[in-house]
Amino acid sequence: MSLKITVTKMDFGASEELTGKVYDVIIVGGGPAGMSAAIYAARYGLTTAIITEEIGGQVAKAGWVENYLGYTRIMGPDLVSKFEEHVKYYNVPIIIDVVENVERAGDLFKIYTMNGDEYTSRTIILAVGERRRKLNVPGEDTYNGRGVSYCAPCDAPLFKGKVVAVVGGGDSAASAALLLTEYASKVYIIHRRNQLRAEKYYQDLLLHHPKIEILWNTVVKELKGDKVLRKAVLQRTDTGEVFELPVDGVFIEIGAEPPVDFFKRIGLELSKDGYIKTNHLMETSIPGIYAAGDCVDLTPRDFRQIVVAAGQGALAAYSAYNYIVRKFGMNRH
Amino acid sequence: MSLKITVTKMDFGASEELTGKVYDVIIVGGGPAGMSAAIYAARYGLTTAIITEEIGGQVAKAGWVENYLGYTRIMGPDLVSKFEEHVKYYNVPIIIDVVENVERAGDLFKIYTMNGDEYTSRTIILAVGERRRKLNVPGEDTYNGRGVSYCAPCDAPLFKGKVVAVVGGGDSAASAALLLTEYASKVYIIHRRNQLRAEKYYQDLLLHHPKIEILWNTVVKELKGDKVLRKAVLQRTDTGEVFELPVDGVFIEIGAEPPVDFFKRIGLELSKDGYIKTNHLMETSIPGIYAAGDCVDLTPRDFRQIVVAAGQGALAAYSAYNYIVRKFGMNRH
Repeated sequence: MSLKITVTKMDFGASEELTGKVYDVIIVGGGPAGMSAAIYAARYGLTTAIITEEIGGQVAKAGWVENYLGYTRIMGPDLVSKFEEHVKYYNVPIIIDVVENVERAGDLFKIYTMNGDEYTSRTIILAVGERRRKLNVPGEDTYNGRGVSYCAPCDAPLFKGKVVAVVGGGDSAASAALLLTEYASKVYIIHRRNQLRAEKYYQDLLLHHPKIEILWNTVVKELKGDKVLRKAVLQRTDTGEVFELPVDGVFIEIGAEPPVDFFKRIGLELSKDGYIKTNHLMETSIPGIYAAGDCVDLTPRDFRQIVVAAGQGALAAYSAYNYIVRKFGMNRH
Repeated sequence: MSLKITVTKMDFGASEELTGKVYDVIIVGGGPAGMSAAIYAARYGLTTAIITEEIGGQVAKAGWVENYLGYTRIMGPDLVSKFEEHVKYYNVPIIIDVVENVERAGDLFKIYTMNGDEYTSRTIILAVGERRRKLNVPGEDTYNGRGVSYCAPCDAPLFKGKVVAVVGGGDSAASAALLLTEYASKVYIIHRRNQLRAEKYYQDLLLHHPKIEILWNTVVKELKGDKVLRKAVLQRTDTGEVFELPVDGVFIEIGAEPPVDFFKRIGLELSKDGYIKTNHLMETSIPGIYAAGDCVDLTPRDFRQIVVAAGQGALAAYSAYNYIVRKFGMNRH
């Protein structure tokens, strides 16, 4: 789940049925980590809810997913549907809302949301993911949705026969570029370095693909157009040369960052770059609060994987269950 | 994969095509950890093989699997088929054999198998799982396959309309008992303690199931019969009373232990109870050797989960890849 502020606001909050009880576990975030945690928590007999801005997290924006064991090749949104179906089998409510703050209230936690609702829980599992990073160049916001995209699988089909560019050099950029070759006539990869960070598997495919051309040592300075995006102003980092590239679409895939401010407000111990510190059982610095998935410091920054997040979610539920049984007993309801 | 010694021996070893090269990664074990590692290793462009006694590990013997995110409810062997299909998509050979020893040979490792074959690899990922624990009572071996079983999903259909007992109190025992109710007329659970270790979710199902009766504080002393198993001799741990229970089948689900001797021979640092010590990136005490799944010390003993093993397998491949690139470079072939 990205924690970006949305302009959407529901006219009414959640029902009394959802807000008026003490949960064993509230899971913040509806990606693979949160959904796996939900399944395990429910199977432990814990009263569980997910609060999330969106269902599926980054997977919902992914193209072909080929590395989640058991699904050889599946589109991100389809995999999310499988995950969601699994969570619903256990009757775990998925509340669409944004958690804005968390406070201690005696032995319990109070959770405050953007919709103005308040939830009470014995434990919290934070699986909020990361926020997608922006280029921060002129034109990026102007042409967002009119040529500029942060989601290749969502928008690739709009660029049939068109010329597009992907900005970035990691796995997400590689995955986006490959997906785009199925629609666009030409796919540039704009990368500030002289080699890719992407998996070898991807590199081989990218370097030999007839539709793909990689612009090495190149950065984006500005995005220009009229009603829609028409060109990218680029600069070589080695020669300083500035030049224009006519493009119909620019896909920005330059990574992500965790919602540091949110974590700081809660008082969680963080790594230098703002990720939640946990041990291998996904316990944070605050007893009763657990974390899993892309927001966790433990996982390598260049290895954000669905199966790792799902494993961590399961472990977070295990730790939450043990904490609850120890602190509140089996007959707490 | 259990590492029990099999009496089966192939008449010929693996082909020169399989043995006569230097692999980047050899994965020992074909359960979820090993198969997830294989997918990631292959996608990193590493030459990879799996050597395993059997495909699927404990999952192949599991009944309904309901907690692997994305598959709401699937039989263990069916989930293994999905995993295997996924591995085969990347053309990773799965060699059926038993690894007996591993030795350093300069910068490489030599792997020796029961079939007398020798493999050479830059790294090893150990995903060998645990060995199933036995009761060690008279009659257990005599009636193995003639009433005594360690695999409910394999053998449950043989006991249609019969009376069976499950020995144990954890999740595997619970899962076995529930599966057996679909075939047997009566299912006893023989448990040495006065409460179950199984998940709350399972406990509710077990305690209220009309076909299930739990014999608390009870242990098995002997298994008796004629050509086939006929009865279990039981003893109450509280009163000392010995009594006989007529049964057609006894399913033993009392846990597992790692193949300690094998690990010691390799020189790996182990926990007190014989599991492989790793950090959170699945690196063992020997550079170039990684471990994942149920044989790893990191994961809680009472929380052996497919999704956790698969996540660890992915991380092990990540670590192996980084080690190889650093030590041998990208153009090592």
